[in-house]
Amino acid sequence: MAQWKNLDTLKSFKDLADSRKVDLTKALAGDAGAARVAKYRVPMAAGLSYYYAAKQVDDGILAQLKALAEECGLAEKFEELYSGEVINTGEKRRVLHQLTRGQLGKAVIADGVDKRAFYTEQQKKIAEFAGKVHRGEILNEKGEKFTTVVQIGIGGSDLGPRAMYLALENWAKKNGCFKMTAKFISNVDPDDAAGVLCETDAAHAIFVLVSKSGTTLETLTNEAFVKDALAKQGLDASKHMIAVTSETSPLAKSSDYLAAFFMDDYIGGRYSSTSAVGGAVLSLAFGPEIFDRFLQGAAEEDKLATEKDPLKNPAMLDALIGVYERNVLGYPCTAVLPYSQALSRFPAHLQQLDMESNGKSVNRFGEPVVYVTGPVIFGEPGTNGQHSFYQLLHQGTDIIPLQFIGLKKSQAETDVVIQGSTSQQKLGANVAAQIMAFACGKEDENRNKYFAGNRPSSIIIGEKLTPEALGALLSHFENKVMFQGFLWNLNSFDQEGVQLGKVLAKRVLAHETDGALKAFSDLLGI
Amino acid sequence: MAQWKNLDTLKSFKDLADSRKVDLTKALAGDAGAARVAKYRVPMAAGLSYYYAAKQVDDGILAQLKALAEECGLAEKFEELYSGEVINTGEKRRVLHQLTRGQLGKAVIADGVDKRAFYTEQQKKIAEFAGKVHRGEILNEKGEKFTTVVQIGIGGSDLGPRAMYLALENWAKKNGCFKMTAKFISNVDPDDAAGVLCETDAAHAIFVLVSKSGTTLETLTNEAFVKDALAKQGLDASKHMIAVTSETSPLAKSSDYLAAFFMDDYIGGRYSSTSAVGGAVLSLAFGPEIFDRFLQGAAEEDKLATEKDPLKNPAMLDALIGVYERNVLGYPCTAVLPYSQALSRFPAHLQQLDMESNGKSVNRFGEPVVYVTGPVIFGEPGTNGQHSFYQLLHQGTDIIPLQFIGLKKSQAETDVVIQGSTSQQKLGANVAAQIMAFACGKEDENRNKYFAGNRPSSIIIGEKLTPEALGALLSHFENKVMFQGFLWNLNSFDQEGVQLGKVLAKRVLAHETDGALKAFSDLLGI
Repeated sequence: MAQWKNLDTLKSFKDLADSRKVDLTKALAGDAGAARVAKYRVPMAAGLSYYYAAKQVDDGILAQLKALAEECGLAEKFEELYSGEVINTGEKRRVLHQLTRGQLGKAVIADGVDKRAFYTEQQKKIAEFAGKVHRGEILNEKGEKFTTVVQIGIGGSDLGPRAMYLALENWAKKNGCFKMTAKFISNVDPDDAAGVLCETDAAHAIFVLVSKSGTTLETLTNEAFVKDALAKQGLDASKHMIAVTSETSPLAKSSDYLAAFFMDDYIGGRYSSTSAVGGAVLSLAFGPEIFDRFLQGAAEEDKLATEKDPLKNPAMLDALIGVYERNVLGYPCTAVLPYSQALSRFPAHLQQLDMESNGKSVNRFGEPVVYVTGPVIFGEPGTNGQHSFYQLLHQGTDIIPLQFIGLKKSQAETDVVIQGSTSQQKLGANVAAQIMAFACGKEDENRNKYFAGNRPSSIIIGEKLTPEALGALLSHFENKVMFQGFLWNLNSFDQEGVQLGKVLAKRVLAHETDGALKAFSDLLGI
Repeated sequence: MAQWKNLDTLKSFKDLADSRKVDLTKALAGDAGAARVAKYRVPMAAGLSYYYAAKQVDDGILAQLKALAEECGLAEKFEELYSGEVINTGEKRRVLHQLTRGQLGKAVIADGVDKRAFYTEQQKKIAEFAGKVHRGEILNEKGEKFTTVVQIGIGGSDLGPRAMYLALENWAKKNGCFKMTAKFISNVDPDDAAGVLCETDAAHAIFVLVSKSGTTLETLTNEAFVKDALAKQGLDASKHMIAVTSETSPLAKSSDYLAAFFMDDYIGGRYSSTSAVGGAVLSLAFGPEIFDRFLQGAAEEDKLATEKDPLKNPAMLDALIGVYERNVLGYPCTAVLPYSQALSRFPAHLQQLDMESNGKSVNRFGEPVVYVTGPVIFGEPGTNGQHSFYQLLHQGTDIIPLQFIGLKKSQAETDVVIQGSTSQQKLGANVAAQIMAFACGKEDENRNKYFAGNRPSSIIIGEKLTPEALGALLSHFENKVMFQGFLWNLNSFDQEGVQLGKVLAKRVLAHETDGALKAFSDLLGI
């Protein structure tokens, strides 16, 4: 059994804190800089690689990070996780989302069920359902084919699936496997559902209601909103809706739905993109074969995360460097900067994944920790961000570590040559240039044009954003976040911090408030 | 003339740093808490109000902030700005975006021109053009009406106009003034333009090319991409494109465009939403009358920013409290959390506005400052964020100040009653609840369910998100950012930090690189 200890009690962490810092402006200079780029690389799945030459590490610090990984027992903890131990100590649950895409260790039997078989069966049921919809065997009341799928969910039932859909939309169109347009309703703000319905042909739409518990207020409210709209159009909602939920939820056996597909308590919302939560909408949008390729990419990447040596385990190394940046170098945030318009909402997904998992002040035993934990995560795609917040990244008073993503080829493969280069080449040139500008800076007598450099970044580079590559990217960050949770000794799988707001909101709606809460509620017209 | 001094040299700032801190858990408790909510309010334009009861201030700190405003000469500096002084010292330019929506002081004559008259004239020309398009007096080659407008621009030519469009889209549809669908192409990634064109009926689209200099690489590249696509469809690009640029740009007098509308060097990209940059696309989308109402809201709010007393000047007070949080309390970030789906991209606009303006390490004289300046800005609409990164906001190890926005009514006014309340009521109840949960926290013996509180927030509350309210919101944040620039003694109007990356990217594309830059470029297939 792995030992669960606070980060600050580990000898290797104390050694790391005392280590000499790396000056990137020197480390990346000249021929040695080029050699460093080639050397500081970890292969990933689906043709991706993780490059960390522009991180503030050297062989000495890497050895210390490796010692930290060993002392913390990262590989053992990961093995316990995928073997089905109760890693989510707060909620006393296993953590099994990786079984939705593969079997890393021995079979996990829980509640008398082989969980890998259970998740696979759900995916098979979804594939059959999607096939029937695509082939016109499931039709609307008038016997017409469905053309649109609308996901109703919030948080992990929205951000991940939405980011994945946007990531593959252009690719699917280019590759002849685009089946249905997907839309998403999440916010309890009625203008969200109203706006989406306004531009949706509801008569030809399937709505996917996603709520593990079947009790998420926003989602049930939006379901009612949609049902109301369908009724007003004379449509039978039960012919237009499917549910993704747990077998024990009130939605599971309702005749309100064409079909129900299941997940369970062992899959947290923010880790659920590869479960039925992402599976239903993505299989309907692109076909089950494409969703399966996405799962394969994630499964391949998961295998790499079992490596004991962080220099061969990209997620573990990324996690270790991130903790070094956060707890030794003292950087408060991390920016995620994909040079890919298709990944426009990938940062928003990672924002939830990371901040909801590791934005905590108590360890997995419920004891306060004395060190900082999860950073703020934000980001937008490049080159857009360059014309927005990069000014602060380059010349602001805080150093923000950067996570770049770059692809050699575009998805649509439609391009133009302007001033001697394609758009895709300009995109790649910009991300390469940014890495160096951040790392090495520039001397200038005019201090306004001076760049201090030493602003660290890593980059994941791939050939093209395929379903496999997307799966590998998703898995990489899921595993990175879990490794960081191990290092900080947190439970990365509960979210007690969201409960208090829910309780108070209910009190407001029941008019059971006084003092400042009543005053604010009155101002908002409740 | 106002004195421009570094923040740390001001006596009132030193006093502020020594002030006793406010315990929000106590300040907001009981009847005194309710009284505080009523008292700590500043009226804004268009029926909005700025509430700061949940900020860590009291009458003593407010008096110190007022002293700081006076010693720093915030009101005088603002007056110099709107009177046309060369406030942008780095680029030796005036800062005149406020003239696009009103005349705060005396007429500003620059280059022999009354600038207010110039901007007004451009808006009038845009209104005429939009009217002709809407009435079918300007048609496509086949004599058919245009239905779609596609903005091609990046940074300030994209984020602000896009956020404003999304903010008013549902409102316009509800109020019968929706004229044309707007889309946006910004990223040099060819998949951005390809994706937008794939779902655009180009034969009935007007493309608005926006580049002040007429040399922005991304924008010219995307123009070529679009022209290429139009040619392939047998369309004459010059019948489908208009330009928004400066009079001296190569685009200004080109026969490639149906029309050209002008801005100038006195309007920075991130401050240009009320200029022709936002004016063309928004007037085409919603009609010039709606854009005019948006300008009126901004102009009304600008007037409030001239108040000398920060307790009557919401932007100035917001700025002062922000500097207190950043430089005295040491908080690294600010989250922008609009409880309005229509404001989904408003945080992305503010991210540019704030981080590009004040993410700097040298003062307006080019001297390094020894204090922290602009924070990281990020955010997503509520209630979505509650199911994403709020976990960290509530229980993470860093305190992140919050900027809420709440409206009493929805835009579409389509709603359902579930469990005794409408969606809009649930939305409002949630934001009220969040303010209190963050400020007051909750005791719990289980430390995992314990909330420390003392997490400060402000909220802007309004009746409904109308064009006027949106204009007021935009102006509020523009003025806040400028006041903070004054406090930090920065030039908030240049962006030298974006230059180095551009230079290096050109070198990559010219294959004039070596070392690590060449190594990264090779990996990206350039």
